[in-house]
Amino acid sequence: MQFEITKEYIEKIQQLITEGKNETLQHLLEEVHYADVAELITELETDEAIYLIKLLENDVSSDVIAELDEDDRENILKGLSSKEIAEELDELDTDDAADIIGELSEKQKEEVIAHLDDVEHAKEIVELLRYDEDTAGGLMAKELVKVNENWNVLTCVKEMRAQAEEVTRVHSIYVVDDNDILKGRLSLKDLLTTSTRSPITDVFIKNVDSVNVHEAADEVAKIMQKYDLEAIPVVDEIGRLVGRITIDDIVDVIKEEAEKDYQMAAGISKDVEADDTILELTKARLPWLVLALFGGFVSVSILGGFSEAMDNYPVLFFFTPLIAAMAGNVGVQSSAIIVQGLANDSLRGSLFKRLIKEVLQSLLNGFVLAALLMSAGMFFLGFQFKVGLTVAISLISVIIIASIIGTFVPIILDKRGIDPALATGPFITTSNDIFGILIYFLIAKLILGF
Amino acid sequence: MQFEITKEYIEKIQQLITEGKNETLQHLLEEVHYADVAELITELETDEAIYLIKLLENDVSSDVIAELDEDDRENILKGLSSKEIAEELDELDTDDAADIIGELSEKQKEEVIAHLDDVEHAKEIVELLRYDEDTAGGLMAKELVKVNENWNVLTCVKEMRAQAEEVTRVHSIYVVDDNDILKGRLSLKDLLTTSTRSPITDVFIKNVDSVNVHEAADEVAKIMQKYDLEAIPVVDEIGRLVGRITIDDIVDVIKEEAEKDYQMAAGISKDVEADDTILELTKARLPWLVLALFGGFVSVSILGGFSEAMDNYPVLFFFTPLIAAMAGNVGVQSSAIIVQGLANDSLRGSLFKRLIKEVLQSLLNGFVLAALLMSAGMFFLGFQFKVGLTVAISLISVIIIASIIGTFVPIILDKRGIDPALATGPFITTSNDIFGILIYFLIAKLILGF
Repeated sequence: MQFEITKEYIEKIQQLITEGKNETLQHLLEEVHYADVAELITELETDEAIYLIKLLENDVSSDVIAELDEDDRENILKGLSSKEIAEELDELDTDDAADIIGELSEKQKEEVIAHLDDVEHAKEIVELLRYDEDTAGGLMAKELVKVNENWNVLTCVKEMRAQAEEVTRVHSIYVVDDNDILKGRLSLKDLLTTSTRSPITDVFIKNVDSVNVHEAADEVAKIMQKYDLEAIPVVDEIGRLVGRITIDDIVDVIKEEAEKDYQMAAGISKDVEADDTILELTKARLPWLVLALFGGFVSVSILGGFSEAMDNYPVLFFFTPLIAAMAGNVGVQSSAIIVQGLANDSLRGSLFKRLIKEVLQSLLNGFVLAALLMSAGMFFLGFQFKVGLTVAISLISVIIIASIIGTFVPIILDKRGIDPALATGPFITTSNDIFGILIYFLIAKLILGF
Repeated sequence: MQFEITKEYIEKIQQLITEGKNETLQHLLEEVHYADVAELITELETDEAIYLIKLLENDVSSDVIAELDEDDRENILKGLSSKEIAEELDELDTDDAADIIGELSEKQKEEVIAHLDDVEHAKEIVELLRYDEDTAGGLMAKELVKVNENWNVLTCVKEMRAQAEEVTRVHSIYVVDDNDILKGRLSLKDLLTTSTRSPITDVFIKNVDSVNVHEAADEVAKIMQKYDLEAIPVVDEIGRLVGRITIDDIVDVIKEEAEKDYQMAAGISKDVEADDTILELTKARLPWLVLALFGGFVSVSILGGFSEAMDNYPVLFFFTPLIAAMAGNVGVQSSAIIVQGLANDSLRGSLFKRLIKEVLQSLLNGFVLAALLMSAGMFFLGFQFKVGLTVAISLISVIIIASIIGTFVPIILDKRGIDPALATGPFITTSNDIFGILIYFLIAKLILGF
């Protein structure tokens, strides 16, 4: 059932563009879903893409433009005049139109808005531009179906038919009073099964979840997931219905949150993709590497401080990468579990209980690993018992400390209102490298007394 | 608008349970959403939770049970008889019921199915149990509204009313022929705006996306996201309509995929949560730590092999954690970018181009970091120029190699049908530690000639 964009297909399209065979192109793309056209567009050269966008009917090209990545869209919009952009936006729902306008320069923004044909639509888009994109207001669309609580079912159906023309998909019918205050919702099912003369007041569901227009986007996502909602009405400070958010927008929020956490854990500080430029990729990666480098300098100094151990116990220095790696891995594991727990609101119990749990768990992991280390060390690597014991005890201590740091840094960050995901990745590995090596040599000095 | 479960609220509920004040409890929980009851349940002791579940009406308690985490649900179902479980499942949609039955032991599964009251419902649940949970069949529900293409709008509306009784939310009305072959779908909007005598054939949308019952769950998620679908019909091998998948199930798939990738990057091999037992957490974490330990042994051996360098250049050994950390961090960054690109199908261009890009990017990062290292090393740490140069050249080489490994290991895994996310985390850091240290000392030997 899925449309596959092959190399041959792309070449064919490119040839038709070169030859200017507009009718063949239009005919060929008529049956193709806008999401597939968007995918095709990203495979073309920018001038070819612009040619195609201009060729398509506005109701298709606008959806294609809305579907594109921000970077791809930017390239294409550069090839369109403000009037042409406005024509595309006239076809889009207010939320998509507002998102696209929000990406334009201040100057172009004004020009495009001035060119919008439908004044009502333009007013709604301008209203949406006022909200921060990470809030309910930034996610919502103005398109919705609403009825007055004083109507009867027949009036409702008539009004809904008119309103539904403007709305792509009817999720819910919202019920408001004369002041536009949200009162409840009407299910299509009830509407189908009720006598046309019943007053709406008898039919509608009075208890309806809603969010305030300033609610944070990730909070909206949590609410919609928890209560399994496919759409949620958005109200202003005094309870007036101002828009609605649908689940497909929330899917994007969830994906972005997850990608951001993942990138932070991997030490990438900006939202980048494999196909971004080398400079963009470097900007996202280099800061973390510089952090790791400075962390590395600290461990160089620590090791330098213990250089007297080299005379009698050179083998200690062979173990530093092992100790550092274990500290890093344990720390990342602990913090990842906490970061996910915080994201899902599933962290329960007191901090003290959590501390005990981490220590017990680390002891269990630590003893298993230390036993492995001792046996492997003595049988295969053949080093002294005393050195083996030193490394083993250090390993257990380092694992305990690393897991405590890994557990509590994200909790502390979260309490201070900082994204706990920041703690994972290079931050934890670097600090645990340093603590790990320091603890290791302190214990070695205590036991071996160099 | 959100319900907040406070400590006081939990204590109140617990006291009412102890005192056996059933009516007060029922009255208190009447207005509470099942998702909130589920949250409350997880805060109670198991016997209190079971008491509450038994007290609630089946239509509420069944939703509560479906909402719980698998672990919490297991505990509670242990306290219910097979007949009681069957009574709960009778209230649930087929997909949720099948998921819950799938978690039971073989013996209890049969008992529960035998106790299901509604034979039609039971048959559908048994059918769903046949499908792998990671396929469209495993995600779909049997509840849907379908009409025959030969009916007219009036018959449709009548039939739909009857069918809609069984279905919680009507997403789409599917159109089938006499053999149940999916022909298209009917929009509620069109139905509202068409004369009742029109034949369905004139109204319905012939082009409808559908997925095969054996399609992989993540593929279904991609299709639904790409085409912005809120529900998709599922067909069998010969095109018969067998069920439908809704976007809320897909939200779960997306979240689970993202969490799995994140956990893999953090070196956690099973789906665990912060509140799992110590043993479960250890099982998920220890395998990766053992891998890292064995990787550590390899680096110990490599360093041991270069021990002659200790006489003249002891400072080289102080830099091993720094080199290893940089290799690990660069490798994880590279593989995370690739893993996300693969997950989003956004990786374009040839492997050769990607190789060139990684090398150029690494050179850029490498030179900046090497310059920092040289200046810091000479001014603050005060080591010889030759040693500084050695470390700097090694650093650049290690960054290049680590980023190439980080880029291509996930690509190769993906081509072989293995989850590329496996490459991130401890796997990449450990192998890059080893390669990093080896390259470092080989270059040092070449330049310094010990």
